[in-house]
Amino acid sequence: MDLVTIDDISDAAARIDGLVLRTPLIDNQRLSGEFGTRVLLKAENLQHSGSFKVRGALNALLSWQERGELPEGVVSFSAGNHAAAIAYAGKRLGVRVIVAMPSKPVPSKVANVERFGGEIVPTDDLAATLAELAEEHGYPILHPFDQPEVIAGQGTAGLELCADGPSPDLVLVPVGGGGLLSGVAAAVRKLAPAARVIGVEPATSNAMGQSLAAGEVVRIPNPSATVADGLTAPFAGQYTLPHVQAYVDEVVEVDEDAIHSAWRELIEASKLLVEPASAVCLAALRSGVVRAPEGGVTVLVISGGNADLSRLAGLG
Amino acid sequence: MDLVTIDDISDAAARIDGLVLRTPLIDNQRLSGEFGTRVLLKAENLQHSGSFKVRGALNALLSWQERGELPEGVVSFSAGNHAAAIAYAGKRLGVRVIVAMPSKPVPSKVANVERFGGEIVPTDDLAATLAELAEEHGYPILHPFDQPEVIAGQGTAGLELCADGPSPDLVLVPVGGGGLLSGVAAAVRKLAPAARVIGVEPATSNAMGQSLAAGEVVRIPNPSATVADGLTAPFAGQYTLPHVQAYVDEVVEVDEDAIHSAWRELIEASKLLVEPASAVCLAALRSGVVRAPEGGVTVLVISGGNADLSRLAGLG
Repeated sequence: MDLVTIDDISDAAARIDGLVLRTPLIDNQRLSGEFGTRVLLKAENLQHSGSFKVRGALNALLSWQERGELPEGVVSFSAGNHAAAIAYAGKRLGVRVIVAMPSKPVPSKVANVERFGGEIVPTDDLAATLAELAEEHGYPILHPFDQPEVIAGQGTAGLELCADGPSPDLVLVPVGGGGLLSGVAAAVRKLAPAARVIGVEPATSNAMGQSLAAGEVVRIPNPSATVADGLTAPFAGQYTLPHVQAYVDEVVEVDEDAIHSAWRELIEASKLLVEPASAVCLAALRSGVVRAPEGGVTVLVISGGNADLSRLAGLG
Repeated sequence: MDLVTIDDISDAAARIDGLVLRTPLIDNQRLSGEFGTRVLLKAENLQHSGSFKVRGALNALLSWQERGELPEGVVSFSAGNHAAAIAYAGKRLGVRVIVAMPSKPVPSKVANVERFGGEIVPTDDLAATLAELAEEHGYPILHPFDQPEVIAGQGTAGLELCADGPSPDLVLVPVGGGGLLSGVAAAVRKLAPAARVIGVEPATSNAMGQSLAAGEVVRIPNPSATVADGLTAPFAGQYTLPHVQAYVDEVVEVDEDAIHSAWRELIEASKLLVEPASAVCLAALRSGVVRAPEGGVTVLVISGGNADLSRLAGLG
């Protein structure tokens, strides 16, 4: 399989330029002081639609459009952020969007999809419902992570973080299905070859870790509940797994308590509204699973901000 | 009285360069769509110590240092953000900081002062306690707003917002004692002369509005409670009032319900953790007190992010 290259990512960046926000890379003095490493936050929670996902969604649709293959509609499945992203991208390009989502989603994520005119089909079996939707409508699947154009699009976040700040020594990326990690690692491996790139996933939803251990795609039909609702992909991808094998140094796991504590800490320390998925990287540093490079530069990729304010109550 | 000029602000910018964050000016598509104006957020909640206040604090201390007058300690009063800012600045320059704060402050604001080694004296009479502290220690006052160096320092936020984005048609600024508004207006008046600059204060804590109406400094010994805890200055300043008279188009008021609604909306729409004081500008747009320039550029100055997560519970 041909892996996504830095050229694919540069092409994606040109394609989506002006349609996505070049999100700030924010120096965080408080976390820097605590970890003895310069901590920079790549704030994709500020991205249009509230997460990095719009990068991949736009790159996929625009790639199809360039080839004269823009469909009338697309189908997909999502915990919420990819759904909002493709609804956003679809609205801009006049493409209908129908997406299977968990029957008990985060309410703000539903609102975020509907704001852009996305059509939601609630289900307890995302994969089966996706197949049914594709069959029923005859629309192609715009996959949440396992598609080269999506991986290249997410990689533009990696391109930016390398261009906009000091050369990183460590880049930490949240892992669900591995699209963000694959793309960011492809960019960083080329632009900052000495940097360690580490993916972080919830111990209760560790499809990538299991797949790496097995050396092949492992499916977890029903990942255990995690507060990091954005990271509950039921499998690592046939595309993402080889990217992670080729470009990523390590994928580590963090437990629920660590994610919950880090979620609160990250919001307070960063002054950013982030969703729990974004906190796994800080959880990995705080729990000692990953050691920060002393005196070096550590980038935490903040994946999204679609959190319910009511859920913050317990954090106060 | 000589007003602070663009040269004073440029000097301040050079003085504090590298010690403060050049905070991002963030395009907000959601609010832009809703108001029919391009909404940009000057995100001072991301500033070191959690608010814009560190700009003025550093400029004041560094100005003293340049003149060979850096004191061993300073005293002041504050609802919390200025206290944290001078504690932060004092720690960097080896200056002791003692500050009178309300006896029932926002808990996170106390923690934020103590983090930087600031000494807090709780009181129900800020002005009297400040006078006592100055007398007892013989330290000069580093005023939260009514000092030219402080105004010039805050003005660097205005300098940046003009330099980093499209020329604004409207700039909205929260008003407590008026230091931020004075400095930002001095910069914007020069760099974007056609822009309207409007200050926004809580109707229940409107020292600036009362002072403008009276044509002289009006004292409100006990401003009524407002959710915008950062905007409870008991008087407009002898320095800030003339700046506002000279540079500002208008100061408007918003009621508590409008602030509360806007606080929630701003956090959800911006994905920034902001304190209620930062929401008065959105409240002014939402309540119709200020009309956004259709098709134009509107900048909201987000003053700070020192909010208690527990207080967000009621917003969910």
